[in-house]
Amino acid sequence: MNYKMVLKTVGRLLWAEAAFLCLPLFVSLYYKENLLLVYLIVIGLLLGIGALMSLTKPKKRTIYAREGFVIVSLSWILLSFFGALPFVISREIPSIIDAFFETVSGFTTTGATILTNIEVMPKSLLFWRAFTHWIGGMGILMFVLAFLPQKDMQSMHIMRAEVPGPSVGKLVSKATVTARILYIIYTVFTVVEIIALLCCKMPLFDSVTTAFATAGTGGFSVKNASIAAYNSLPIEIVCTFFMFLFGINFNLFYLIIIKQFKRAFKSEELWTYIGIVAISIGIITVNIMPLATSFGNALRQAGFQVVSIITTTGFVTADFNHWPILSQFIIITLMFIGACSGSTGGGLKVGRIIILFKSGIRELKRAINPRKVQALRLDHATLDKETTSATCIYFVVYMMVIAVSMLLVSLNNLDFATTFSSVITCINNVGPGLSLVGPVENFSNLSVLTKLVLATDMLIGRLEVLPMIILFIPSTWKKST
Amino acid sequence: MNYKMVLKTVGRLLWAEAAFLCLPLFVSLYYKENLLLVYLIVIGLLLGIGALMSLTKPKKRTIYAREGFVIVSLSWILLSFFGALPFVISREIPSIIDAFFETVSGFTTTGATILTNIEVMPKSLLFWRAFTHWIGGMGILMFVLAFLPQKDMQSMHIMRAEVPGPSVGKLVSKATVTARILYIIYTVFTVVEIIALLCCKMPLFDSVTTAFATAGTGGFSVKNASIAAYNSLPIEIVCTFFMFLFGINFNLFYLIIIKQFKRAFKSEELWTYIGIVAISIGIITVNIMPLATSFGNALRQAGFQVVSIITTTGFVTADFNHWPILSQFIIITLMFIGACSGSTGGGLKVGRIIILFKSGIRELKRAINPRKVQALRLDHATLDKETTSATCIYFVVYMMVIAVSMLLVSLNNLDFATTFSSVITCINNVGPGLSLVGPVENFSNLSVLTKLVLATDMLIGRLEVLPMIILFIPSTWKKST
Repeated sequence: MNYKMVLKTVGRLLWAEAAFLCLPLFVSLYYKENLLLVYLIVIGLLLGIGALMSLTKPKKRTIYAREGFVIVSLSWILLSFFGALPFVISREIPSIIDAFFETVSGFTTTGATILTNIEVMPKSLLFWRAFTHWIGGMGILMFVLAFLPQKDMQSMHIMRAEVPGPSVGKLVSKATVTARILYIIYTVFTVVEIIALLCCKMPLFDSVTTAFATAGTGGFSVKNASIAAYNSLPIEIVCTFFMFLFGINFNLFYLIIIKQFKRAFKSEELWTYIGIVAISIGIITVNIMPLATSFGNALRQAGFQVVSIITTTGFVTADFNHWPILSQFIIITLMFIGACSGSTGGGLKVGRIIILFKSGIRELKRAINPRKVQALRLDHATLDKETTSATCIYFVVYMMVIAVSMLLVSLNNLDFATTFSSVITCINNVGPGLSLVGPVENFSNLSVLTKLVLATDMLIGRLEVLPMIILFIPSTWKKST
Repeated sequence: MNYKMVLKTVGRLLWAEAAFLCLPLFVSLYYKENLLLVYLIVIGLLLGIGALMSLTKPKKRTIYAREGFVIVSLSWILLSFFGALPFVISREIPSIIDAFFETVSGFTTTGATILTNIEVMPKSLLFWRAFTHWIGGMGILMFVLAFLPQKDMQSMHIMRAEVPGPSVGKLVSKATVTARILYIIYTVFTVVEIIALLCCKMPLFDSVTTAFATAGTGGFSVKNASIAAYNSLPIEIVCTFFMFLFGINFNLFYLIIIKQFKRAFKSEELWTYIGIVAISIGIITVNIMPLATSFGNALRQAGFQVVSIITTTGFVTADFNHWPILSQFIIITLMFIGACSGSTGGGLKVGRIIILFKSGIRELKRAINPRKVQALRLDHATLDKETTSATCIYFVVYMMVIAVSMLLVSLNNLDFATTFSSVITCINNVGPGLSLVGPVENFSNLSVLTKLVLATDMLIGRLEVLPMIILFIPSTWKKST
């Protein structure tokens, strides 16, 4: 382990967070809130500690996979901790545990909240909450990669550790350029959504925060009733469209930009994603018809909720806690599936589901005809054994983490659906669960232990297990050989 | 596909079932029940249809893995269908769906029942119910293998398809001899349990049926209140001991017989199994203390239920539906884990859990140190890549079957815990679930579709996915090349 390089890189990331915090500071000045001191204290702390960490002079500047994982997990934990301080110092969320939960939920784009009344919060803090989604969606370190000069080799290790999906490809040969292209696409889409929401007569502040939460597929809303508060079909359509868009692999947008339409539209993952969304909307629409006033109303509810859940955004316009059990199980299944790899969404990712499904089918075929073993193909390319085996093991570890988390959460002695769904919604970075953590409820009444377990699950889910688990393995901390 | 050999072998199995049915026939004569005609009709049917199927003259007598799987799955379905007829013809279970569910639950050693009042059933039918457990526990085809002459090569394919566990080894070079040894151990243990139960003053009929249900890790009881009805600590201790015993890999008993004690007691699976049982009993005892009258009482309840569930037997002496959620989640986790491979128990099997766990750890280590890849070891032998990869994929397919089953069962619109636990308890061949299918409830009120889905899950669980799924793959039915 190259400790000095880890320290130096994490220190630089604390500086980046200090820069991020200037935005809510400006918002608080604009709205004449009395929070200037709060932000200045936190920014000062970040700059100071970051400077101390940057003082180290590493002998070797090279970092490997191990360092990449540790940098990513440590910085996500530290940035969540410091990002929680404005809530604590301003006494808006007096408990550091609650504030940490809220900030982890923000950065990991989960959107699960411990706030019981969102609308009384100062606007700058609501802005910071939404902004954590935007930063976390594409990746905190990706941001730094994109806009600070780094050696290319090192960047790739960090990018691999932070960007979701079974296989991470660089769009262009340099990782920093790739990061920059992705951030530009991300920013342009966000701006277009802000404009679209403004056209639907949403206030500017709400438009910006909602667009941030959509872009990161986060789900924090500035309204207690989430998107339902606006009771506006155009707003719901805009949100649904952009949630769906941010759930697509960003590589495809890049392919479209460089006019490789054919390659972009041949993506198996894209069509599977579209298929799952369409079928789920269809079944749920029929299933909730008896509860809805009309077919149109049922379709509107089903469409919004399905897209919100599969993209792991977590905005709500209907309380699916009262839907029939079939619809609830589809919602739970969608939480597991998640969005496309290389998008800002969470979950297992559609790409992984395809690989898992194909591996299963091949195993069955092998049982029938042991001599005729075929290679797995995705998008007309052969999947190497390493990828398929790693994907299967990823699934195994992921289910084990879920099992352990559920046992820990069950110490809270809440009902079955709450215990089960709270873990599922957090590890998949969705937001709302069922029963006591349902769409119109919140996470405030859980125990401290449960909140810490769920916050860890969010980080495990967002960083895709490895970087977080690796922290607990002794050999990670050995001197590099 | 060698259709003729499949037909011939399945036909022979129908004859075997006709022979099995003579036992309840004698029981009904002994208790002077008016059921002679019922059994004669079914036995006649089995002999007739079996004879018709045996008329075929196969050109080639060789069968491969594909034929092995098809023979196993088809015969389990047919034997369950014909085994259900005595219940239907006697009008004791008028619905064929219910009777089929009950018989599948019997053969697969699940023990989930649709009976609301067990004690009013004729004794011979209760005997048949328990006897299906005994036959199904070690394997219907294993029985035939053991006592009818077969070519060795062919037998191995059938044995591989029916015996549970990640890796099936022949104890001795000939499969038929292996099957015979296993059945002898099985029979001796069963007889010892009958004697032990008689010593605890359990009536003879109850002792025999209870021993059958324990040996197969089935769980059908002849009492409505299951083992709780006897309210006897000695009986509970005997049952707990034998449930635990039948949950151990039978290969270990063979090793002990041939005096290879060291090899037997070095089994990682055995010690992991013991460890999981001990830890679960410990946690649950502490967790249910406030509900129990004393520490001893809590330990007694926890001990019986933990062993009953991990061995997937499903006898009950306490309604864990009212336990704290932590204990309920441990029970659910134990259902997934299941007994040792090569035992009569169901679930994923402890051996698979070990392989999955080790694969996960290795993947994490690989991420830290990509150059230092170690082979997985189990019981000081290296696990080949095929086994570990097949185990991971097995887990993936198994979870997919669970997901699809839950969606189908949720059409019943029952509560979350019922929908979830009914699938888990059936695919793992346990018996009781939670909520509406809890320990003191039964499966009678479920819809026809749900019963069929759950019966399929029992078969999928007992035959370990492949043989059942293979029936639905078109290429299975192609002419052999």
